[in-house]
Amino acid sequence: MHLHYWSLFDGHAGSGAAVVASKLLQHHILEQLQEIVDIMKNSAVLPPTCLGEEPENMTANSRTLTRAASLRSGVGAPGSPSTPPTRFFTEKKIPHECLVIGAIESAFKEMDLQIERERTIYNISGGCTALVVVYLLGKLYVANAGDSRAIIIRNGEVVPMSSEFTPETERQRLQYLAFMQPHLLGNEFTHLEFPRRVQRKEIGKRMLYRDFNMTGWAYKTIEEDDLKFPLIYGEGKKARVMATIGVTRGLGDHDLKVHDSNIYIKPFLSSTPEVKVYDLQQYEHGPDDVLILATDGLWDVLLNEEVAEAVTNFLPNCDPDGPHRYTLAAQDLVMRARGVLKDRGWRISNDRLGSGDDISVFVIPLIHGNKQSLNKQ
Amino acid sequence: MHLHYWSLFDGHAGSGAAVVASKLLQHHILEQLQEIVDIMKNSAVLPPTCLGEEPENMTANSRTLTRAASLRSGVGAPGSPSTPPTRFFTEKKIPHECLVIGAIESAFKEMDLQIERERTIYNISGGCTALVVVYLLGKLYVANAGDSRAIIIRNGEVVPMSSEFTPETERQRLQYLAFMQPHLLGNEFTHLEFPRRVQRKEIGKRMLYRDFNMTGWAYKTIEEDDLKFPLIYGEGKKARVMATIGVTRGLGDHDLKVHDSNIYIKPFLSSTPEVKVYDLQQYEHGPDDVLILATDGLWDVLLNEEVAEAVTNFLPNCDPDGPHRYTLAAQDLVMRARGVLKDRGWRISNDRLGSGDDISVFVIPLIHGNKQSLNKQ
Repeated sequence: MHLHYWSLFDGHAGSGAAVVASKLLQHHILEQLQEIVDIMKNSAVLPPTCLGEEPENMTANSRTLTRAASLRSGVGAPGSPSTPPTRFFTEKKIPHECLVIGAIESAFKEMDLQIERERTIYNISGGCTALVVVYLLGKLYVANAGDSRAIIIRNGEVVPMSSEFTPETERQRLQYLAFMQPHLLGNEFTHLEFPRRVQRKEIGKRMLYRDFNMTGWAYKTIEEDDLKFPLIYGEGKKARVMATIGVTRGLGDHDLKVHDSNIYIKPFLSSTPEVKVYDLQQYEHGPDDVLILATDGLWDVLLNEEVAEAVTNFLPNCDPDGPHRYTLAAQDLVMRARGVLKDRGWRISNDRLGSGDDISVFVIPLIHGNKQSLNKQ
Repeated sequence: MHLHYWSLFDGHAGSGAAVVASKLLQHHILEQLQEIVDIMKNSAVLPPTCLGEEPENMTANSRTLTRAASLRSGVGAPGSPSTPPTRFFTEKKIPHECLVIGAIESAFKEMDLQIERERTIYNISGGCTALVVVYLLGKLYVANAGDSRAIIIRNGEVVPMSSEFTPETERQRLQYLAFMQPHLLGNEFTHLEFPRRVQRKEIGKRMLYRDFNMTGWAYKTIEEDDLKFPLIYGEGKKARVMATIGVTRGLGDHDLKVHDSNIYIKPFLSSTPEVKVYDLQQYEHGPDDVLILATDGLWDVLLNEEVAEAVTNFLPNCDPDGPHRYTLAAQDLVMRARGVLKDRGWRISNDRLGSGDDISVFVIPLIHGNKQSLNKQ
């Protein structure tokens, strides 16, 4: 089986985790895919639920039947004719694609566990975001844990291939965890969100707040406990978990603590990527159709549409057979985000400030996806 | 202030909760809105963060400054110029709309607490879903907790105004809760998902599973613990939490237990609605533009598009000034979902099975929204 792999890591608080992940994550992905390689090849048959077992008709045992006497059918309510009483239990059919997603998810978890195990011996510092693309059997699997971003540009149109994981986008997950496991807050933080810091003199007054299960805001009477620092604080690029970190998924960070305290951040960080699938064979791709991966340094200053426009204008001016046309397009994007040094700092188009963050960009042509799939047919 | 209110409750395991909620939920909503009525009227000024306090510039205290020394700027990484070091803390600006959303969310919580408090005295049985629409200051707030559904039909096009909360759509929330608080499973259930029941003879074999943080599937070695009944089991309309309930948000159900056990279901159920906002003043509405609320009995057998087509065909044939035209359209929808009794049961269009569930439908004209807002301007 053909397999292609691209990956992008953005480190923080040290380069260790990013370097280790850039060298080892692909091995974890390969290891996870190893178990399912024969199943993937056999695309005509759905993946077996249980390995090393002949498919058979299962009859439910009596315990199962009792449990199946569910609420709606059990209390005399008229059952919908589309849901006859369940006698024999059916099996959920899992498509092949879901096994690749599961393999990538497991690989991220294993990578994070390896960093945890070996961080002291090998002095693996810091943490990193991870954005990974796996090409397998005509499909792209884009896995993202962090605040990097992937988009596809097809015919000049943007197809988003990832979402970002930040204190703002993951607020409810983080607040819910803190609500259920308050000891993780070390008596220093509150899981409630307030529009600003609460002052002691405001105790007894009514202030806007937001709990884990709210998307709106309501007033509550301020108590002593609300004076603690909020778990989630700040807006946009300044939003932080426990006043420390601005990205909520990734690898590493096992030793990261709140400044001047003994409170670990890691329980709030997830190593699980979101995996989106793009079926290359569903579309015909031209030489200017590309997948773009970039760190937040690019997306902080350029909109998806600006990136699409830049690439769509740049590529047709390159030699169509030039070996470096996509590399040149990536360099062009980096320079558009960095800008040029003027009197008042680095400036990009429309006199906006350029990015001072590090900027990494991949521009990956999709046209080879066509050819590869054609070769196989 | 003008306020309009519609509500739809679908009971299960007894009618008590549905009846009580249909009589009292609006009072909780009014009570919550009471506190913010003056703020809502004053639409020119953003809602105050703290009530009874003059706005002032806050200077951060030293503790705050320490905490603000966040990871990215704290470890020598180049800070982006768009995020200068924070010296003075800004205040999050909360728009008026968010206060109405918060008020409705709080009202649902209070309603559920009242049912919990009074269920024994007043013998309030069962639980119910709740779909509520509040009209306030030119906007519709559609709040949904359960598996009813609201759609707007505008110019024959469907605008979804709610999503459903079921064991399948809320799988990850439920598994996460069970993972973090395993005692809620009463040693009878496992938070892991399997494509079918695991049999004892399969211990030691590799079977597909899905954990709370996975969207894909992977193989794991079956252990004794995996023989427990899965927290989430079944597909589509047959999906159940703890083999008992097929809807995961709503009111009531405080006494609901797993059949033949002492395990309560309520900790897994949420009373929080999802609130979507529709700005009536953003569009001009004709006499055939409507908001439709209906219980799952309708949506189980008819697609959004079929409902839109039916209404779009029905309304123009009614007297435009007839006082019952929207009621007639609602009745038409109910009959389309119930079908007619034939040799082989109740049948709807294309010889599909009709709904055997109860079916409640509201068809609410949006054209009065125009007029009302115009009157006010």
